[in-house]
Amino acid sequence: MKSDLDRLIQERGFGGIVVMGEVEGNHALRYMTNSARITHGIVVKKPGEQPVIIVNGMERDEAAKSGLPVRTMAEFGYYEMIKETGSPFEGQVRLLAKILDEYGIKGQVSFYGVGDPGQSYVLLNRLAAEKPDIVPTGEPETTIFDEAYETKDDLELEAMRSVAERTNAAMGETLGFIKSHRVEDGRLVKSDGSPLTVGDVKTFLRARLNAANLTDDGETIFAIGRDAGVPHSRGEDPDVLELGKSIVFDLFPRDMTTGYYHDMTRTWCLGYAPDEVQRAYDEVMHIFNNAMEALKVGEACSVYQEMTCDFFEERGHPTIRSNPATNDGYVHSLGHGLGLQIHARPRLSSISTDVIKPRQVFSVEPGLYYPERGFGVRIEDTVYVDDDGEIHSLTPFPKDLVIEVG
Amino acid sequence: MKSDLDRLIQERGFGGIVVMGEVEGNHALRYMTNSARITHGIVVKKPGEQPVIIVNGMERDEAAKSGLPVRTMAEFGYYEMIKETGSPFEGQVRLLAKILDEYGIKGQVSFYGVGDPGQSYVLLNRLAAEKPDIVPTGEPETTIFDEAYETKDDLELEAMRSVAERTNAAMGETLGFIKSHRVEDGRLVKSDGSPLTVGDVKTFLRARLNAANLTDDGETIFAIGRDAGVPHSRGEDPDVLELGKSIVFDLFPRDMTTGYYHDMTRTWCLGYAPDEVQRAYDEVMHIFNNAMEALKVGEACSVYQEMTCDFFEERGHPTIRSNPATNDGYVHSLGHGLGLQIHARPRLSSISTDVIKPRQVFSVEPGLYYPERGFGVRIEDTVYVDDDGEIHSLTPFPKDLVIEVG
Repeated sequence: MKSDLDRLIQERGFGGIVVMGEVEGNHALRYMTNSARITHGIVVKKPGEQPVIIVNGMERDEAAKSGLPVRTMAEFGYYEMIKETGSPFEGQVRLLAKILDEYGIKGQVSFYGVGDPGQSYVLLNRLAAEKPDIVPTGEPETTIFDEAYETKDDLELEAMRSVAERTNAAMGETLGFIKSHRVEDGRLVKSDGSPLTVGDVKTFLRARLNAANLTDDGETIFAIGRDAGVPHSRGEDPDVLELGKSIVFDLFPRDMTTGYYHDMTRTWCLGYAPDEVQRAYDEVMHIFNNAMEALKVGEACSVYQEMTCDFFEERGHPTIRSNPATNDGYVHSLGHGLGLQIHARPRLSSISTDVIKPRQVFSVEPGLYYPERGFGVRIEDTVYVDDDGEIHSLTPFPKDLVIEVG
Repeated sequence: MKSDLDRLIQERGFGGIVVMGEVEGNHALRYMTNSARITHGIVVKKPGEQPVIIVNGMERDEAAKSGLPVRTMAEFGYYEMIKETGSPFEGQVRLLAKILDEYGIKGQVSFYGVGDPGQSYVLLNRLAAEKPDIVPTGEPETTIFDEAYETKDDLELEAMRSVAERTNAAMGETLGFIKSHRVEDGRLVKSDGSPLTVGDVKTFLRARLNAANLTDDGETIFAIGRDAGVPHSRGEDPDVLELGKSIVFDLFPRDMTTGYYHDMTRTWCLGYAPDEVQRAYDEVMHIFNNAMEALKVGEACSVYQEMTCDFFEERGHPTIRSNPATNDGYVHSLGHGLGLQIHARPRLSSISTDVIKPRQVFSVEPGLYYPERGFGVRIEDTVYVDDDGEIHSLTPFPKDLVIEVG
């Protein structure tokens, strides 16, 4: 969690870190600023000292909500630097040099955030030339943030609980919307007699998410029939809601203010479930419950993926372990951590080196897919591990397969 | 426009360009791929040759919709590279080297897109070491994309016309929603008697945007009274819709698929307009019409900002020219280009070196702000310049100040 950053910076021998760029899509900047509503900024941190945020003066008040000490670019003479050099870019080089100087940051300085790759390359090369006592660097693979994100502090848990509640509520409202339609010729129809479509459901859903300060960035999966059998398919807007087809509804919105995600999936059959869908659902629920029961602090995360493959293979299903190229059966890993990113540590996959720890938040999502047979099933909760090692689901929404309609 | 890229690359002496990263927030990648719905990819272009897109095999079909030749990372041996080096990062270095090699790109290669700044720095340094016949670089200030974005080709104009139509429609629906409320004690109230709030309006608006495949990313300005007098204020959700207060409604959503923006502002007074608001509105409309009338291909963009300052100063208003620190009067520039970015070239500001050209798309948005007197007025259309130099507004929505209610 955030309090681990000092240790992580020191373990890597960094003299300090810089997090920069626009806040949009910038999980590291959101993390360091406690999701303050700035548009862009620079956070610097020296090990053992509190981070400091440097922003445009207009965003001073928003930046203060981060709880960090706030400085403005003007205080470092940024605008004079631009004037002197005749170049906003050179001004930025000098600004960074001045900030690092003032906070006594030397040696290897690691940079994070979001930027144009070529601009970052030129900027950090110029900075190295301008300020010879620092060596700019970055972390191309596992970063201090990847490690810190793995566990959550109380503030993060509170934010994630809040997103979870609103996401569960939006799924419930969407189910209510679907059920408010009548059945005609084996499908749901609207009051004007035209069929209810996947596009209609997503439009309704997004209005509800939006009213709850959530956004799905257009990514929600609401896939019916064959599409439900393809884990990457988001579903096609013109598809109609036919009875007896499996619907995979994978909802993973983020809070528009805090940036935290929830992730949940339910599988529904309207009216009735064909036998093979019911069987697949029963098996998925069985291993879901077994895995949830087995989760234990100190255990390797890979164990749960292995146990899921064992279970499905014993019942005759192909798995990603028995055939890495399979599109049938169990074709993905059991889960993933989430927070300000939808995919983070821990990974519940066969190659994962992660271990279950208190304060992790991750998904548990077994599934079975048979696109050629026209169905798929996935059930997913997001869970957290408390300080006593107890596992709690953040996704209380009912898991019933068959939805009464008509 | 896009067809200028070859010339722009050659003028700068680049042996080629690379655009990379996640597509989210990545206008250069969207531009090069004609907004294909991939999640990430690498586009390479050698001057005089067609760009090529390299994606994960799973996204091959989506990538093909870009109209570009599609290659997969697997075809370049990416997964073997990761295996051999034991590192996804080293795999990425080798993949880039192999791609550049295969397309015969040498010399200065400029990189664009979105990435973590430290990772980009380490990556391009490693690439330079791995492939001595290239010199990675970037453009820290005006890039080839900044220049290309300034004018639009037919496909882009079509996309922007479509966003414009839907944005105008959403503003109309929002006005209809507001007008559907009754007046009680000088404010609008809902059927349960509670006051209609800015938050209610934004929730309604976002549902309509969403149904039109638009998103405002939570950024819409709907600011009433004093907030209307602060150009950066988005308005406060709990504020109620009082009669006789100026409302600045600045709507600039983007299409969720193509990524193109529209930008429009209207100022409304519910029921009646106080004299000072009406006067400010009349003046803003006057200079709006004058500026629109005066726009002429070949003219310096700064001319229109000067003419607006002249007009307002003659009428006794402070301007950003007469007092750069003013919060009263006319406090910003007259307009800005837009496209895949909300702010692009041309800039209609006093320091702009841009010139009006055919195929530009830009906003025209004079305003007057008096926060301490509790009001602000801004009127904004997005316009385009056709090949004959005619100016056309993409924002036909009525500009009336007073909205009949009750």
